[in-house]
Amino acid sequence: MDRILYFHTMKKNIYTLGVLQYIPFFYVIWSDGLLSASEINITKTAFEKDASLTTADKKTLAGWLDKNNKPSSQELKSWRTIISNAAIKLVEHDAYPLASLAKRLVAHYFSDTPENKQLQHIELNLGIQPNHYHHLFDVEVQHEATSDYYNAKELDAILKGEFAATVTKFHEVLKDPIYTWSIERNKEKFRATVLNQVKHLAAENYGAMAYPNAYGGIEDMPAYAFIFENIMYVDGSLAIKFGVQFGLFGGSIQKLGTKYHHDLYLANAGKAELLGCFAMTETGHGSNVRGIKTTATYQKETDLIILHTPGENDNKEYIGNALDATMASVFAQLIVNGKNEGVHAILVPIRDKNHELLPGVRIEDNGYKLGLNGVDNGKIWFNQVSVPRKNLLNKYGDIKEDGTYYSNIENPNKRFFTMLGTLVGGRICVARAGLGGAKKALTIAVKHALKRRQFNDNKKIQEDLLMDYPSHQLRLTPPIAKAYVYDVTLQHIMKLYSDDTKTDKREIETQVAGLKSIITWFANDTIQECREACGGKGYLIENRIADLKGDVDIFTTFEGDNNVLLQLAAKGVLSDFKAEFNSAGFASVLKLLTSQLNDKLTTINPIYSNKTDAEHLYNPKFHKHAFEYRTRRLTYTLAMRIRNYIKNGVPSYQAFLKVQTHLLALGKAYSCQLSYEIYSTYTETITDEKNKILFEQLGTLSALHEIKADASWYLEQGYMGASKSKAIKQRVERICTELRPHINVLVDGFGIPPHLITAPIAK
Amino acid sequence: MDRILYFHTMKKNIYTLGVLQYIPFFYVIWSDGLLSASEINITKTAFEKDASLTTADKKTLAGWLDKNNKPSSQELKSWRTIISNAAIKLVEHDAYPLASLAKRLVAHYFSDTPENKQLQHIELNLGIQPNHYHHLFDVEVQHEATSDYYNAKELDAILKGEFAATVTKFHEVLKDPIYTWSIERNKEKFRATVLNQVKHLAAENYGAMAYPNAYGGIEDMPAYAFIFENIMYVDGSLAIKFGVQFGLFGGSIQKLGTKYHHDLYLANAGKAELLGCFAMTETGHGSNVRGIKTTATYQKETDLIILHTPGENDNKEYIGNALDATMASVFAQLIVNGKNEGVHAILVPIRDKNHELLPGVRIEDNGYKLGLNGVDNGKIWFNQVSVPRKNLLNKYGDIKEDGTYYSNIENPNKRFFTMLGTLVGGRICVARAGLGGAKKALTIAVKHALKRRQFNDNKKIQEDLLMDYPSHQLRLTPPIAKAYVYDVTLQHIMKLYSDDTKTDKREIETQVAGLKSIITWFANDTIQECREACGGKGYLIENRIADLKGDVDIFTTFEGDNNVLLQLAAKGVLSDFKAEFNSAGFASVLKLLTSQLNDKLTTINPIYSNKTDAEHLYNPKFHKHAFEYRTRRLTYTLAMRIRNYIKNGVPSYQAFLKVQTHLLALGKAYSCQLSYEIYSTYTETITDEKNKILFEQLGTLSALHEIKADASWYLEQGYMGASKSKAIKQRVERICTELRPHINVLVDGFGIPPHLITAPIAK
Repeated sequence: MDRILYFHTMKKNIYTLGVLQYIPFFYVIWSDGLLSASEINITKTAFEKDASLTTADKKTLAGWLDKNNKPSSQELKSWRTIISNAAIKLVEHDAYPLASLAKRLVAHYFSDTPENKQLQHIELNLGIQPNHYHHLFDVEVQHEATSDYYNAKELDAILKGEFAATVTKFHEVLKDPIYTWSIERNKEKFRATVLNQVKHLAAENYGAMAYPNAYGGIEDMPAYAFIFENIMYVDGSLAIKFGVQFGLFGGSIQKLGTKYHHDLYLANAGKAELLGCFAMTETGHGSNVRGIKTTATYQKETDLIILHTPGENDNKEYIGNALDATMASVFAQLIVNGKNEGVHAILVPIRDKNHELLPGVRIEDNGYKLGLNGVDNGKIWFNQVSVPRKNLLNKYGDIKEDGTYYSNIENPNKRFFTMLGTLVGGRICVARAGLGGAKKALTIAVKHALKRRQFNDNKKIQEDLLMDYPSHQLRLTPPIAKAYVYDVTLQHIMKLYSDDTKTDKREIETQVAGLKSIITWFANDTIQECREACGGKGYLIENRIADLKGDVDIFTTFEGDNNVLLQLAAKGVLSDFKAEFNSAGFASVLKLLTSQLNDKLTTINPIYSNKTDAEHLYNPKFHKHAFEYRTRRLTYTLAMRIRNYIKNGVPSYQAFLKVQTHLLALGKAYSCQLSYEIYSTYTETITDEKNKILFEQLGTLSALHEIKADASWYLEQGYMGASKSKAIKQRVERICTELRPHINVLVDGFGIPPHLITAPIAK
Repeated sequence: MDRILYFHTMKKNIYTLGVLQYIPFFYVIWSDGLLSASEINITKTAFEKDASLTTADKKTLAGWLDKNNKPSSQELKSWRTIISNAAIKLVEHDAYPLASLAKRLVAHYFSDTPENKQLQHIELNLGIQPNHYHHLFDVEVQHEATSDYYNAKELDAILKGEFAATVTKFHEVLKDPIYTWSIERNKEKFRATVLNQVKHLAAENYGAMAYPNAYGGIEDMPAYAFIFENIMYVDGSLAIKFGVQFGLFGGSIQKLGTKYHHDLYLANAGKAELLGCFAMTETGHGSNVRGIKTTATYQKETDLIILHTPGENDNKEYIGNALDATMASVFAQLIVNGKNEGVHAILVPIRDKNHELLPGVRIEDNGYKLGLNGVDNGKIWFNQVSVPRKNLLNKYGDIKEDGTYYSNIENPNKRFFTMLGTLVGGRICVARAGLGGAKKALTIAVKHALKRRQFNDNKKIQEDLLMDYPSHQLRLTPPIAKAYVYDVTLQHIMKLYSDDTKTDKREIETQVAGLKSIITWFANDTIQECREACGGKGYLIENRIADLKGDVDIFTTFEGDNNVLLQLAAKGVLSDFKAEFNSAGFASVLKLLTSQLNDKLTTINPIYSNKTDAEHLYNPKFHKHAFEYRTRRLTYTLAMRIRNYIKNGVPSYQAFLKVQTHLLALGKAYSCQLSYEIYSTYTETITDEKNKILFEQLGTLSALHEIKADASWYLEQGYMGASKSKAIKQRVERICTELRPHINVLVDGFGIPPHLITAPIAK
């Protein structure tokens, strides 16, 4: 048997069987510049151990690994021709596709087909995947649109954790025909449908979930958050109407009221028998709740509280449920004995049993909106409307029998923030719903991209799948990774928030403020990317992304405008969560902070700032360090800037205005760091090694993508050198390619039931 | 008269009248770190010339300018107290507000009030504006929401140029009540309204504008583009329906047909008496027009062309006007004598006089969309529909009497691109319409931000205007500047495109492909930013931004998907516009390109890469150099990467797939460079010096903002150092502040008539 392959007639191209089997590997390595020097060494170690090779073979192969004397283009081309001429197949679902190809290659030129463990070893350890190289060959490729290496059900189970059964049961409930999605453009009809759905959910006991058992609930806020996200898959309007009724209105009774209010109203609210709204925002005051103008004046002689809207533009605005509700939880300046005790919530009946407005109450429809047209948002004015003193939700501040005001929180600022703090759960839910919207859009976009073909090589009959375009992978894969990261983050935060053993929620408030901002922005960006990724099909309402876009859009504004919340988060970081932030207490906090930070901001070692090997770039320690460094650096420089302004006599309010963009950057950096730390701590707890690796890879992609997005900052700081910055960019693209075979499993792992997706393009 | 001011009792705080008048200036300079060293020198030169100062005064002032020994915080505070104690006013609309403040300060402490030209000189030459410093003082500020230094009418006139009269007349036409905007959610009713409006525009002779005089037009495509943008201010659906009828359908007859078709159809199309659609896109083939499946087979025996949709998913899709049209301009594979001659357009009657579908034609409504619901998009299938041979739009390819195919463009590729090229005007119009949407959203957002107040210092009764927040300036001002840049760019490109003396439009096609992409993305981003900047109010349909969002969204996809177009632009750059791009011709182009580029990519001088003075950063030469460098560098590295792939035997199609993200980056870089070059060449022609300076400032803001956005790339390349990158970031913020007083004039300069804005928040 001739064990030497003569290719062409040139002496140079004589290959032994031993060498030939390595040729596909060397072709992949060199023609694409895919592997780094350190990775190439794996190859060397492998063939040195290969007993099927002669010393001469090994010498030849070692020569081909010499970076300074790499195979010429001509030689690479000849390898390619050898492979092409063999007319063999590349089968993607082979366990070792490249080693199998090599085996078939040898079988073609020689009749022998040895099984070579070393080749398999290389393929496994270099993580070479068909996506990396199949375009390099001119051979028939047996593509698989998606791999079954991972199991979507396992991913879903990891994400849902202890709530899996609750969610599964809920998906069954959502099979009821009243949740069947259809297009309804008329707002009155749409609202009627949504109201019916809300009542149905209440009847199925989902409304009261977060309330105590005595009032029909199971006191489980984390489970409620899961339900909330899953309602988003049905329809955005339903989620928001549900949230207004049970979370905001019911929640205000639960959290700000006392037993008197609970006994009278809470069970009914949970059953949607008492429909209510949450009247906080005013036309003139959205983000600045403390500045609202509506007054609630206590009248001692009648023992009544008088609600009043002083000016035409001081009305409540965008109030969800305003057209259906019979009661409102109204936030107003409480004035007792001529003294303004700050903002308090008061329960105010607004309609009678015939659904007629009560005297002194004026309500107008906010009309059509960009989205959420199934929610009845409206404006409310009060003209000297009186309610009993007991209607004051009096958990944190009360008017006593003798007509005097009392609160066990003396500091009015602290009292105000304590009240607002009880509502932070809603902010987590909004982020969850935004994330749900992003997941649904990603699922639709990925499934479309796994069917849709576009363009091709003139020689090929079949056009490429959209999902096989690098730019398409790059637009959809990082948001999928981030969706996993944010999912874990929000679940963790909700658990902390619901932990009643921790009474001081200030730190969580700061965290939620930041996370709600970055996650709702992420949701909007992702949905837009998905819309564009689906082209014209994404524009059609039937494919569901369009409505998600309109619905989720406002999430960046309501439950706290993102820009305002980020500044809140940044101020929280600045004050080190220790003291309320005001210019008086600022100096001492600053002193402390400065000394703390100065120590930790050591100069970055140039070796570190130019480290580009895979091991380093994939290491969560690097990601955490990069995020921590950014937060600390931004905190320090921000603190220094503010201190300088204040030292020069600039009033603190003006100083903060001057550094506003810096505050926003810090708020984002902090939230990003927080999210990654929660996620990476979580992945360490995953017991199944295979899935753990996948979760780690998603974390790495998310982290590197974030560092890449802020590369200019890191470069400016000298934290990264140019080569590291470029290497990170390449790694992001490469991980996207690596995840390509698993992308269908990744979106299925979100666990959105097919009957709620409905989009024809995702079928 | 005591000419020395004793402040406190410390010797240090004795100031002469001469020195006192400079104190507000020095306070501004040092307390805010506002000015760079070179700028401070202007101050020095000025007071050296000040005859009112003694030598001792000058020595004191010179001491205060010493950067290494700058005034202490204590001294700065004492200056502030001197100013505060004087209880004087800062009047923003004074010609020299800071010099006037200084004058009032002197008047308070001394009875004398000298006029000091040197102070005015400093104020003017340093470009110090009240926005930069009013927050530093504790004095009463007489704010002005907006300055009248510039005149909106003048800006408007500059932008409109020779088309001013046409547009003004058109604005009058749009006062007709049929253009009155109202919310219509039902698509059938909405479409009926829009159809009426289209017919009215036709009756007023706007439909045929781009057609020759013989067919009712004035053959003025640039004027047509102005009309198109202005229709966008009425409603997006109207603009698109108008564009489909007159631009695409009529345009295909005009550009692809010959006299036979013109005589029969063109005038009627222009009068909207013949309603038509443009049937190119198919469900399976959006961007890859060459791959469409619909066939048009010539049957010699009957002398007919048979239109046929081979598969269920090969239907025409998203075809505007599909429900109203009686004729379609259908793009299909023309098969003559069994040979596929490539894609050609054929006029196909689709409905009879009773508006019933003709035999073999099936049309379905595309249903509700994210936006543009006033446009009747539909799907069309043809089942063996025959039309006369003469219905072939035969300008570039014809079936002769003898039944043979003939074209004077032999290369089928070239023929195809020549046909598509005639439709490039539509792409410019889409970009114009997107830009119009962005301008309208910016106008609404700015006017809202100049009324809306939010938060405040506890001491102030009046809350700050939204527009006074740095983050708000930073989100709205750069897009305003870019809107000016893109306006000038698109007008210029339209002029080039309409110039019939230039027959080879290939270069313009490449340019338009890139510009359409970056400008429609810009429009989407801007409209989203405006939505968020208006908070909840932006979410209400009545405030018009919501509809703009939904309507403009698809502009990134239709008339060419942006990602596909950018790659087209990049390939155009690569081939140096000289030869059709294919792998055969590629090698020689590459060789040429490589040698050309290698020379020009000289290493960047470290002094240059760290130059941070204002003069340099404001210099258009720097901006142009930065943009040119980026394009060249990306072209060179891209060419090298492709060459290496091809050298190693990777097929050219696959090589291009591997570098897809690189191609997109090059496409963007090229378009950005092109746009800035057109704009800066244009600003040089502005004769009025005052407005010229403003236009230059807008160009600088736009350019620096773009460089800032891509700072990581410039840093990686070593083109910029960290200090330059930071300086650019600061300059962007500063220019935004400088433009703050003029922001209302800037949006009014877009010339959108108030009766078309309608948004209550912009009133």
